[in-house]
Amino acid sequence: MRVSELVVVSGVPLATVKYYLREGLLMPGAASSATQSEYGEEHVRRLALIKALAGAGLPINRIRTIVGLVDTPADTVFETLGRALAALPPYAAEAGGPDEYPRARAVLERLGQVYDPTYPAVAQLERALAAAEDVGIPMTSERLDAYAPHVRAIAEVDLQLMPTDSVASAVEYAVLGTVIYEPVLAALRRLAHQDLGAGMFADRTFDTVATPDPHEQDDQ
Amino acid sequence: MRVSELVVVSGVPLATVKYYLREGLLMPGAASSATQSEYGEEHVRRLALIKALAGAGLPINRIRTIVGLVDTPADTVFETLGRALAALPPYAAEAGGPDEYPRARAVLERLGQVYDPTYPAVAQLERALAAAEDVGIPMTSERLDAYAPHVRAIAEVDLQLMPTDSVASAVEYAVLGTVIYEPVLAALRRLAHQDLGAGMFADRTFDTVATPDPHEQDDQ
Repeated sequence: MRVSELVVVSGVPLATVKYYLREGLLMPGAASSATQSEYGEEHVRRLALIKALAGAGLPINRIRTIVGLVDTPADTVFETLGRALAALPPYAAEAGGPDEYPRARAVLERLGQVYDPTYPAVAQLERALAAAEDVGIPMTSERLDAYAPHVRAIAEVDLQLMPTDSVASAVEYAVLGTVIYEPVLAALRRLAHQDLGAGMFADRTFDTVATPDPHEQDDQ
Repeated sequence: MRVSELVVVSGVPLATVKYYLREGLLMPGAASSATQSEYGEEHVRRLALIKALAGAGLPINRIRTIVGLVDTPADTVFETLGRALAALPPYAAEAGGPDEYPRARAVLERLGQVYDPTYPAVAQLERALAAAEDVGIPMTSERLDAYAPHVRAIAEVDLQLMPTDSVASAVEYAVLGTVIYEPVLAALRRLAHQDLGAGMFADRTFDTVATPDPHEQDDQ
Protein backbone atom coordinates (compact mmCIF):
# COMPACT_ATOMS: atom_id res chain seq x y z
CA MET A 1 0.00 0.00 0.00
CA ARG A 2 1.02 3.61 -0.48
CA VAL A 3 1.67 5.93 2.44
CA SER A 4 -1.77 7.55 2.01
CA GLU A 5 -3.40 4.16 2.55
CA LEU A 6 -1.09 3.44 5.50
CA VAL A 7 -2.39 6.67 7.10
CA VAL A 8 -5.99 5.53 6.69
CA VAL A 9 -5.41 1.95 7.86
CA SER A 10 -3.27 2.89 10.87
CA GLY A 11 -5.18 6.02 11.88
CA VAL A 12 -1.84 7.81 12.31
CA PRO A 13 -1.64 11.22 10.57
CA LEU A 14 0.78 11.61 7.64
CA ALA A 15 3.01 14.14 9.44
CA THR A 16 3.35 11.69 12.35
CA VAL A 17 4.12 8.76 10.04
CA LYS A 18 6.87 10.85 8.42
CA TYR A 19 8.21 11.80 11.85
CA TYR A 20 8.39 8.15 12.91
CA LEU A 21 10.18 7.32 9.63
CA ARG A 22 12.75 10.11 10.20
CA GLU A 23 13.25 9.01 13.82
CA GLY A 24 13.85 5.43 12.72
CA LEU A 25 10.90 4.06 14.74
CA LEU A 26 9.07 2.98 11.59
CA MET A 27 11.06 0.94 9.08
CA PRO A 28 11.24 2.42 5.55
CA GLY A 29 8.91 1.08 2.88
CA ALA A 30 10.20 -0.64 -0.24
CA ALA A 31 10.98 1.99 -2.91
CA SER A 32 8.52 1.43 -5.75
CA SER A 33 9.64 4.50 -7.75
CA ALA A 34 11.90 7.52 -7.23
CA THR A 35 9.21 9.24 -5.15
CA GLN A 36 7.03 6.43 -3.80
CA SER A 37 7.39 3.63 -1.26
CA GLU A 38 5.30 0.55 -0.69
CA TYR A 39 4.18 -0.31 2.83
CA GLY A 40 2.83 -3.58 4.23
CA GLU A 41 1.42 -5.33 7.29
CA GLU A 42 4.65 -4.91 9.24
CA HIS A 43 4.27 -1.12 8.97
CA VAL A 44 0.64 -1.24 10.13
CA ARG A 45 1.64 -3.43 13.05
CA ARG A 46 4.60 -1.22 13.99
CA LEU A 47 2.45 1.93 13.90
CA ALA A 48 -0.13 0.26 16.15
CA LEU A 49 2.64 -0.54 18.66
CA ILE A 50 4.10 2.98 18.56
CA LYS A 51 0.63 4.51 18.90
CA ALA A 52 -0.20 2.31 21.90
CA LEU A 53 3.11 3.07 23.63
CA ALA A 54 2.80 6.80 22.98
CA GLY A 55 -0.75 6.60 24.37
CA ALA A 56 0.63 4.92 27.51
CA GLY A 57 2.90 7.94 28.05
CA LEU A 58 6.23 6.67 26.71
CA PRO A 59 8.57 9.35 25.30
CA ILE A 60 10.08 8.78 21.87
CA ASN A 61 13.47 7.50 23.12
CA ARG A 62 11.78 4.80 25.22
CA ILE A 63 9.64 3.74 22.26
CA ARG A 64 12.84 3.50 20.22
CA THR A 65 14.33 1.12 22.80
CA ILE A 66 11.31 -1.18 22.53
CA VAL A 67 11.00 -1.26 18.73
CA GLY A 68 14.79 -1.74 18.58
CA LEU A 69 14.40 -4.91 20.66
CA VAL A 70 11.65 -6.18 18.37
CA ASP A 71 14.01 -5.75 15.39
CA THR A 72 17.19 -6.87 17.16
CA PRO A 73 16.43 -9.01 20.22
CA ALA A 74 19.01 -9.53 22.96
CA ASP A 75 20.66 -12.95 23.43
CA THR A 76 17.87 -14.45 25.53
CA VAL A 77 14.11 -14.05 25.77
CA PHE A 78 14.51 -13.01 29.41
CA GLU A 79 16.93 -10.22 28.59
CA THR A 80 14.94 -9.02 25.58
CA LEU A 81 11.68 -8.78 27.53
CA GLY A 82 13.47 -7.37 30.59
CA ARG A 83 15.03 -4.53 28.60
CA ALA A 84 11.74 -3.77 26.84
CA LEU A 85 9.81 -3.77 30.15
CA ALA A 86 12.44 -1.53 31.75
CA ALA A 87 11.49 1.15 29.19
CA LEU A 88 7.95 1.47 30.60
CA PRO A 89 6.74 4.27 32.89
CA PRO A 90 6.64 5.35 35.66
CA TYR A 91 10.14 6.80 35.50
CA ALA A 92 12.17 7.56 38.62
CA ALA A 93 14.10 10.81 38.80
CA GLU A 94 17.34 8.83 39.04
CA ALA A 95 18.36 5.22 39.46
CA GLY A 96 19.64 4.22 42.88
CA GLY A 97 22.73 2.22 43.76
CA PRO A 98 22.69 -1.44 44.77
CA ASP A 99 22.38 -0.58 48.49
CA GLU A 100 19.30 1.55 48.02
CA TYR A 101 15.64 0.55 47.97
CA PRO A 102 15.73 -1.01 51.45
CA ARG A 103 11.94 -1.49 51.65
CA ALA A 104 11.69 -3.10 48.23
CA ARG A 105 14.66 -5.37 48.89
CA ALA A 106 13.23 -6.50 52.22
CA VAL A 107 9.96 -7.38 50.50
CA LEU A 108 11.63 -9.24 47.62
CA GLU A 109 13.89 -11.13 49.97
CA ARG A 110 10.99 -12.15 52.16
CA LEU A 111 9.26 -13.45 49.02
CA GLY A 112 12.44 -15.23 47.91
CA GLN A 113 12.17 -13.75 44.43
CA VAL A 114 14.93 -13.45 41.85
CA TYR A 115 15.32 -9.77 40.94
CA ASP A 116 17.70 -7.40 39.23
CA PRO A 117 18.30 -4.53 41.72
CA THR A 118 18.70 -2.08 38.82
CA TYR A 119 15.34 -3.05 37.27
CA PRO A 120 13.06 0.03 37.40
CA ALA A 121 10.22 -1.87 39.09
CA VAL A 122 12.43 -2.17 42.20
CA ALA A 123 12.69 1.63 42.49
CA GLN A 124 8.97 1.85 41.70
CA LEU A 125 8.16 -0.61 44.52
CA GLU A 126 10.41 1.32 46.92
CA ARG A 127 8.61 4.62 46.20
CA ALA A 128 5.19 2.97 46.52
CA LEU A 129 6.15 1.33 49.85
CA ALA A 130 7.56 4.63 51.18
CA ALA A 131 4.29 6.38 50.24
CA ALA A 132 2.27 3.71 52.08
CA GLU A 133 4.49 4.21 55.14
CA ASP A 134 4.06 8.00 54.94
CA VAL A 135 0.27 7.79 55.10
CA GLY A 136 0.32 5.38 58.04
CA ILE A 137 -0.55 2.14 56.20
CA PRO A 138 2.91 0.53 55.92
CA MET A 139 3.30 -2.84 54.23
CA THR A 140 3.33 -5.39 57.04
CA SER A 141 4.48 -9.00 56.80
CA GLU A 142 0.85 -9.99 57.37
CA ARG A 143 -0.36 -7.96 54.40
CA LEU A 144 2.55 -8.97 52.17
CA ASP A 145 2.14 -12.67 52.88
CA ALA A 146 -1.58 -12.38 52.17
CA TYR A 147 -1.15 -10.43 48.90
CA ALA A 148 1.89 -12.20 47.46
CA PRO A 149 0.48 -15.56 46.31
CA HIS A 150 -2.36 -13.79 44.51
CA VAL A 151 -0.11 -11.28 42.77
CA ARG A 152 2.07 -14.18 41.69
CA ALA A 153 -0.93 -16.12 40.40
CA ILE A 154 -1.99 -13.10 38.32
CA ALA A 155 1.55 -12.82 36.91
CA GLU A 156 1.46 -16.53 36.05
CA VAL A 157 -1.72 -16.00 34.05
CA ASP A 158 0.05 -13.20 32.17
CA LEU A 159 2.97 -15.44 31.24
CA GLN A 160 0.77 -18.41 30.34
CA LEU A 161 -1.16 -16.28 27.86
CA MET A 162 1.98 -14.80 26.23
CA PRO A 163 2.20 -15.55 22.49
CA THR A 164 5.58 -16.97 21.44
CA ASP A 165 5.06 -17.15 17.68
CA SER A 166 7.53 -14.30 17.10
CA VAL A 167 9.77 -11.82 18.89
CA ALA A 168 7.37 -9.04 17.88
CA SER A 169 4.36 -10.82 19.39
CA ALA A 170 6.16 -11.59 22.64
CA VAL A 171 7.60 -8.09 23.12
CA GLU A 172 4.32 -6.39 22.15
CA TYR A 173 2.38 -8.57 24.57
CA ALA A 174 4.85 -8.07 27.41
CA VAL A 175 5.02 -4.28 27.25
CA LEU A 176 1.39 -3.60 26.36
CA GLY A 177 0.00 -6.30 28.65
CA THR A 178 1.99 -4.88 31.55
CA VAL A 179 0.86 -1.26 31.23
CA ILE A 180 -2.61 -1.81 29.80
CA TYR A 181 -3.72 -4.36 32.40
CA GLU A 182 -2.58 -2.34 35.44
CA PRO A 183 -5.63 -0.04 35.30
CA VAL A 184 -7.89 -3.02 34.52
CA LEU A 185 -6.67 -4.83 37.64
CA ALA A 186 -6.90 -1.64 39.73
CA ALA A 187 -10.52 -1.08 38.66
CA LEU A 188 -11.39 -4.74 39.32
CA ARG A 189 -9.92 -4.43 42.84
CA ARG A 190 -12.03 -1.33 43.53
CA LEU A 191 -15.15 -3.11 42.28
CA ALA A 192 -14.35 -6.20 44.36
CA HIS A 193 -14.19 -3.87 47.39
CA GLN A 194 -17.67 -2.61 46.49
CA ASP A 195 -19.08 -6.12 46.10
CA LEU A 196 -17.48 -7.37 49.33
CA GLY A 197 -18.47 -4.19 51.18
CA ALA A 198 -22.09 -4.59 50.09
CA GLY A 199 -22.07 -8.00 51.75
CA MET A 200 -20.35 -6.86 54.93
CA PHE A 201 -21.64 -3.33 55.50
CA ALA A 202 -24.80 -2.80 53.48
CA ASP A 203 -27.15 -2.22 56.42
CA ARG A 204 -24.63 -1.43 59.10
CA THR A 205 -24.02 1.95 60.63
CA PHE A 206 -20.71 2.98 62.13
CA ASP A 207 -22.20 2.50 65.61
CA THR A 208 -22.54 -1.20 64.92
CA VAL A 209 -19.00 -1.74 63.65
CA ALA A 210 -17.06 0.85 65.58
CA THR A 211 -15.53 0.51 68.98
CA PRO A 212 -14.83 3.84 70.74
CA ASP A 213 -12.10 5.91 69.10
CA PRO A 214 -9.21 6.34 71.59
CA HIS A 215 -8.60 9.83 70.18
CA GLU A 216 -12.14 10.84 70.99
CA GLN A 217 -11.83 9.38 74.49
CA ASP A 218 -8.75 11.52 75.10
CA ASP A 219 -10.84 14.60 74.55
CA GLN A 220 -13.50 13.65 77.06
CA MET B 1 -0.57 23.57 70.55
CA ARG B 2 -0.36 26.88 68.74
CA VAL B 3 -0.56 27.14 64.98
CA SER B 4 3.24 27.55 64.73
CA GLU B 5 3.69 24.19 66.43
CA LEU B 6 1.00 22.61 64.23
CA VAL B 7 3.04 23.74 61.21
CA VAL B 8 6.16 22.01 62.58
CA VAL B 9 4.38 18.81 63.66
CA SER B 10 2.35 18.41 60.44
CA GLY B 11 5.01 19.59 58.01
CA VAL B 12 2.34 21.70 56.28
CA PRO B 13 3.37 25.36 55.70
CA LEU B 14 1.49 28.10 57.58
CA ALA B 15 -0.01 29.61 54.42
CA THR B 16 -1.38 26.19 53.46
CA VAL B 17 -2.77 25.57 56.95
CA LYS B 18 -4.57 28.93 56.74
CA TYR B 19 -5.88 28.06 53.29
CA TYR B 20 -7.29 24.74 54.55
CA LEU B 21 -8.91 26.58 57.50
CA ARG B 22 -10.53 29.12 55.14
CA GLU B 23 -11.71 26.34 52.81
CA GLY B 24 -13.26 24.45 55.72
CA LEU B 25 -11.09 21.35 55.19
CA LEU B 26 -9.38 21.82 58.55
CA MET B 27 -11.65 22.34 61.54
CA PRO B 28 -11.04 25.58 63.51
CA GLY B 29 -8.96 25.42 66.69
CA ALA B 30 -10.37 26.37 70.09
CA ALA B 31 -10.04 30.13 70.63
CA SER B 32 -7.59 30.62 73.51
CA SER B 33 -7.52 34.42 73.19
CA ALA B 34 -8.77 37.08 70.80
CA THR B 35 -5.92 36.36 68.38
CA GLN B 36 -4.86 32.78 69.16
CA SER B 37 -6.30 29.31 68.72
CA GLU B 38 -5.33 26.04 70.25
CA TYR B 39 -4.90 22.96 68.02
CA GLY B 40 -4.76 19.28 68.92
CA GLU B 41 -4.28 15.75 67.63
CA GLU B 42 -7.39 15.91 65.47
CA HIS B 43 -5.84 18.80 63.53
CA VAL B 44 -2.56 16.93 63.04
CA ARG B 45 -4.46 13.88 61.84
CA ARG B 46 -6.67 15.90 59.50
CA LEU B 47 -3.67 17.67 57.98
CA ALA B 48 -1.96 14.30 57.38
CA LEU B 49 -5.07 13.08 55.53
CA ILE B 50 -5.38 16.24 53.43
CA LYS B 51 -1.65 16.12 52.61
CA ALA B 52 -1.82 12.46 51.54
CA LEU B 53 -4.91 13.04 49.37
CA ALA B 54 -3.40 16.14 47.75
CA GLY B 55 -0.25 14.09 47.11
CA ALA B 56 -2.37 11.42 45.41
CA GLY B 57 -3.65 14.06 42.99
CA LEU B 58 -7.05 14.92 44.48
CA PRO B 59 -8.32 18.45 43.83
CA ILE B 60 -9.58 20.50 46.77
CA ASN B 61 -13.29 19.85 46.15
CA ARG B 62 -12.74 16.08 46.19
CA ILE B 63 -10.73 16.34 49.41
CA ARG B 64 -13.63 18.34 50.88
CA THR B 65 -16.03 15.49 50.03
CA ILE B 66 -13.86 13.00 51.89
CA VAL B 67 -13.22 15.06 55.03
CA GLY B 68 -16.92 15.94 55.03
CA LEU B 69 -17.75 12.22 55.25
CA VAL B 70 -15.30 11.76 58.12
CA ASP B 71 -17.11 14.56 60.02
CA THR B 72 -20.63 13.63 58.92
CA PRO B 73 -20.87 10.01 57.79
CA ALA B 74 -23.75 8.81 55.61
CA ASP B 75 -26.40 6.48 57.05
CA THR B 76 -24.44 3.27 56.53
CA VAL B 77 -20.78 2.28 56.49
CA PHE B 78 -21.20 1.06 52.90
CA GLU B 79 -22.55 4.38 51.68
CA THR B 80 -20.00 6.43 53.61
CA LEU B 81 -17.05 4.48 52.24
CA GLY B 82 -18.59 4.30 48.76
CA ARG B 83 -19.01 8.07 48.56
CA ALA B 84 -15.49 8.65 49.86
CA LEU B 85 -14.00 6.15 47.41
CA ALA B 86 -15.97 7.71 44.52
CA ALA B 87 -13.98 10.91 45.12
CA LEU B 88 -10.68 9.25 44.17
CA PRO B 89 -8.92 9.67 40.81
CA PRO B 90 -8.78 8.82 37.97
CA TYR B 91 -11.62 11.11 36.89
CA ALA B 92 -13.63 10.47 33.74
CA ALA B 93 -14.49 13.41 31.49
CA GLU B 94 -18.17 12.76 32.12
CA ALA B 95 -20.29 10.10 33.75
CA GLY B 96 -22.16 7.76 31.43
CA GLY B 97 -25.77 6.69 31.57
CA PRO B 98 -26.99 3.35 32.91
CA ASP B 99 -26.79 1.73 29.44
CA GLU B 100 -23.16 2.65 28.92
CA TYR B 101 -20.02 0.79 29.91
CA PRO B 102 -20.94 -2.40 28.03
CA ARG B 103 -17.53 -4.04 28.53
CA ALA B 104 -17.43 -3.32 32.26
CA ARG B 105 -21.01 -4.49 32.74
CA ALA B 106 -20.34 -7.73 30.85
CA VAL B 107 -17.34 -8.40 33.10
CA LEU B 108 -19.21 -7.59 36.32
CA GLU B 109 -22.17 -9.69 35.31
CA ARG B 110 -19.95 -12.63 34.44
CA LEU B 111 -18.39 -12.31 37.90
CA GLY B 112 -21.83 -12.03 39.50
CA GLN B 113 -20.76 -8.97 41.48
CA VAL B 114 -23.01 -6.39 43.10
CA TYR B 115 -22.17 -2.97 41.64
CA ASP B 116 -23.51 0.54 41.39
CA PRO B 117 -23.45 1.44 37.66
CA THR B 118 -22.79 5.08 38.51
CA TYR B 119 -19.75 4.24 40.67
CA PRO B 120 -16.66 5.78 39.00
CA ALA B 121 -14.73 2.49 39.03
CA VAL B 122 -17.23 1.13 36.49
CA ALA B 123 -16.32 3.90 34.02
CA GLN B 124 -12.68 3.37 34.90
CA LEU B 125 -12.95 -0.36 34.15
CA GLU B 126 -14.71 0.39 30.86
CA ARG B 127 -11.92 2.72 29.71
CA ALA B 128 -9.25 0.23 30.75
CA LEU B 129 -10.98 -2.63 28.93
CA ALA B 130 -11.44 -0.50 25.79
CA ALA B 131 -7.72 0.36 25.86
CA ALA B 132 -6.81 -3.34 26.14
CA GLU B 133 -9.07 -4.07 23.17
CA ASP B 134 -7.49 -1.24 21.15
CA VAL B 135 -3.98 -2.66 21.53
CA GLY B 136 -5.07 -6.16 20.57
CA ILE B 137 -5.06 -7.78 24.02
CA PRO B 138 -8.78 -7.77 24.84
CA MET B 139 -10.03 -9.19 28.13
CA THR B 140 -11.13 -12.74 27.34
CA SER B 141 -13.29 -14.97 29.53
CA GLU B 142 -10.22 -17.16 30.02
CA ARG B 143 -8.15 -14.25 31.36
CA LEU B 144 -11.00 -12.83 33.44
CA ASP B 145 -11.81 -16.17 35.06
CA ALA B 146 -8.12 -16.68 35.85
CA TYR B 147 -7.60 -13.17 37.30
CA ALA B 148 -10.87 -12.72 39.17
CA PRO B 149 -10.45 -15.02 42.21
CA HIS B 150 -7.03 -13.51 42.92
CA VAL B 151 -8.21 -9.92 42.62
CA ARG B 152 -11.07 -10.79 44.96
CA ALA B 153 -8.69 -12.43 47.43
CA ILE B 154 -6.54 -9.25 47.46
CA ALA B 155 -9.66 -7.14 48.07
CA GLU B 156 -10.63 -9.47 50.93
CA VAL B 157 -7.25 -8.87 52.57
CA ASP B 158 -7.86 -5.12 52.26
CA LEU B 159 -11.22 -5.37 54.03
CA GLN B 160 -9.96 -7.75 56.71
CA LEU B 161 -7.22 -5.29 57.66
CA MET B 162 -9.57 -2.28 57.79
CA PRO B 163 -9.65 -0.57 61.20
CA THR B 164 -13.16 0.02 62.55
CA ASP B 165 -12.32 1.91 65.74
CA SER B 166 -13.75 5.15 64.30
CA VAL B 167 -15.28 6.65 61.18
CA ALA B 168 -12.07 8.60 60.62
CA SER B 169 -9.92 5.45 60.73
CA ALA B 170 -12.19 3.53 58.38
CA VAL B 171 -12.51 6.32 55.81
CA GLU B 172 -8.79 7.15 55.93
CA TYR B 173 -7.87 3.51 55.45
CA ALA B 174 -10.34 2.98 52.61
CA VAL B 175 -9.33 5.99 50.52
CA LEU B 176 -5.59 5.90 51.21
CA GLY B 177 -5.33 2.13 51.06
CA THR B 178 -7.08 2.09 47.70
CA VAL B 179 -4.89 4.66 45.97
CA ILE B 180 -1.61 4.02 47.80
CA TYR B 181 -1.62 0.24 47.31
CA GLU B 182 -2.40 0.34 43.58
CA PRO B 183 1.22 1.22 42.66
CA VAL B 184 2.52 -1.27 45.26
CA LEU B 185 0.49 -4.08 43.67
CA ALA B 186 1.48 -2.96 40.14
CA ALA B 187 5.19 -3.03 41.05
CA LEU B 188 4.82 -6.43 42.75
CA ARG B 189 3.17 -7.81 39.58
CA ARG B 190 6.05 -6.53 37.43
CA LEU B 191 8.57 -8.10 39.80
CA ALA B 192 6.66 -11.39 39.85
CA HIS B 193 6.91 -11.36 36.03
CA GLN B 194 10.67 -10.96 36.37
CA ASP B 195 10.99 -13.80 38.86
CA LEU B 196 8.77 -16.13 36.83
CA GLY B 197 10.48 -15.12 33.58
CA ALA B 198 13.90 -15.89 35.05
CA GLY B 199 12.70 -19.42 35.70
CA MET B 200 11.07 -19.87 32.30
CA PHE B 201 13.32 -17.97 29.92
CA ALA B 202 16.69 -17.35 31.56
CA ASP B 203 18.77 -19.35 29.10
CA ARG B 204 16.37 -19.55 26.20
CA THR B 205 16.67 -17.71 22.93
CA PHE B 206 13.68 -16.80 20.81
CA ASP B 207 14.59 -19.67 18.44
CA THR B 208 13.86 -22.16 21.20
CA VAL B 209 10.48 -20.73 22.22
CA ALA B 210 9.21 -19.34 18.92
CA THR B 211 7.29 -21.16 16.26
CA PRO B 212 7.46 -19.51 12.82
CA ASP B 213 5.76 -16.14 12.65
CA PRO B 214 2.92 -16.31 10.07
CA HIS B 215 3.68 -12.68 9.11
CA GLU B 216 7.29 -13.57 8.33
CA GLN B 217 6.17 -16.60 6.33
CA ASP B 218 3.98 -14.37 4.18
CA ASP B 219 7.06 -12.42 3.15
CA GLN B 220 9.03 -15.44 2.01
